[in-house]
Amino acid sequence: MLNNIGIVLVGTKYPGNIGSVARAMHNMGLDHLRLAAPQCRIDDEARRMARISNPVLASARCHRSLGAALRGFRLVVGTTGKSGGKREQTSSARALAPLILSHAARQRVAIVFGPEDTGLIDEDLKRCQWLMRIPTRPGAHSINLSHAVMVVSYELFLGHLGFEPARVPVLAGVDQIEAMYLQLETALRTIGFLHDENAAHMMFRLRRLLGRSGLERSDVGIMRGIARQLAWFGAARGRKP
Amino acid sequence: MLNNIGIVLVGTKYPGNIGSVARAMHNMGLDHLRLAAPQCRIDDEARRMARISNPVLASARCHRSLGAALRGFRLVVGTTGKSGGKREQTSSARALAPLILSHAARQRVAIVFGPEDTGLIDEDLKRCQWLMRIPTRPGAHSINLSHAVMVVSYELFLGHLGFEPARVPVLAGVDQIEAMYLQLETALRTIGFLHDENAAHMMFRLRRLLGRSGLERSDVGIMRGIARQLAWFGAARGRKP
Repeated sequence: MLNNIGIVLVGTKYPGNIGSVARAMHNMGLDHLRLAAPQCRIDDEARRMARISNPVLASARCHRSLGAALRGFRLVVGTTGKSGGKREQTSSARALAPLILSHAARQRVAIVFGPEDTGLIDEDLKRCQWLMRIPTRPGAHSINLSHAVMVVSYELFLGHLGFEPARVPVLAGVDQIEAMYLQLETALRTIGFLHDENAAHMMFRLRRLLGRSGLERSDVGIMRGIARQLAWFGAARGRKP
Repeated sequence: MLNNIGIVLVGTKYPGNIGSVARAMHNMGLDHLRLAAPQCRIDDEARRMARISNPVLASARCHRSLGAALRGFRLVVGTTGKSGGKREQTSSARALAPLILSHAARQRVAIVFGPEDTGLIDEDLKRCQWLMRIPTRPGAHSINLSHAVMVVSYELFLGHLGFEPARVPVLAGVDQIEAMYLQLETALRTIGFLHDENAAHMMFRLRRLLGRSGLERSDVGIMRGIARQLAWFGAARGRKP
């Protein structure tokens, strides 16, 4: 179950933090660390903080973007310390851990952490189906990166020790989902619902709305069927898709 | 309640760890940090890790021994990653947190963490009334000092919140939602995606899909906007809605 969970760090700036994250993961039984567009290298400081011969750090993989790092995952959970804006529906780490474990019993789950200074930005959040936060003292929301990974990993480790799975479906792959959004956007432009001014905002809203529901393959099939029909309609009226 | 809890670090070697501990405590609503016989000073590295003007670090007090640091406390809880020897009765942080909070509602409680390399030694343990541990992967017991403080502080903070509500939005009313589904069905018939044979089944699937996401009023607005545009399109092509 824990073996199906990956930790993805986006744009990390300090090698020491990568090492500390690897140490926390190793303590808590998590093995798979991916770095998306890291702003630093795995150096001696990282190895020092991870402790000697940490297998998590040794097997960490680098990717040029978050999209590339998420390949192969089904459920993508973003972490955020902020609220408001595009982050209206967030659940606490404790509340989400059992659900994440239920999914991890069947399929691969990525948990995504943003850069030290900004956290995840909107561009990253749009790839996340669920949002998770760690409760803090009011006004002290900024948690050290490795501390945040430690708390989330700890919740997952404790949850897996006393695990009762909820019934969850097999989710669609992220590549299928991205293809669906592309097709939907094209179709909604065809019928004039989207145009250059509102497309980014509206597609973001649709991503949040559909992402929260946990899309299965058959759901993606329905949405793509609607999009196909729209495109056919648009073409019949002489608009270009 | 949290104001009656003190974190006591014994023989800490690295200033960065003291700073990281102060940051974790501040995040989790704990204010009182005591250093017993520290092996380093609070320097720029400590202040860097604590983040600027961290009030926990600024008010940290140094004592020459653990005995001196514990003056004024009633309940003393030691932390250990080891087992065996004098550590036969240890409870997990999660199990102890509610008991510690119950005491903290009435009297001062100290939670004691040992040096980075050895943890608490027998001489320190004998001053502790309870022993607490953080569960780990077998064979990976050694947790970073500030990670250990973070987990314990997190358990206390969540325990003191008692109830940690998820952040949920105001949802759309069921009448609004039913009106949306009616409008959607009509529109999807207009473009030929639905017909009498498949409408009931497909609408049920759409209800499951959209229902899971927790529709807000603005979400309903978007879906109705799409439906309106579809109906307009269909009418323009001469089909009856």
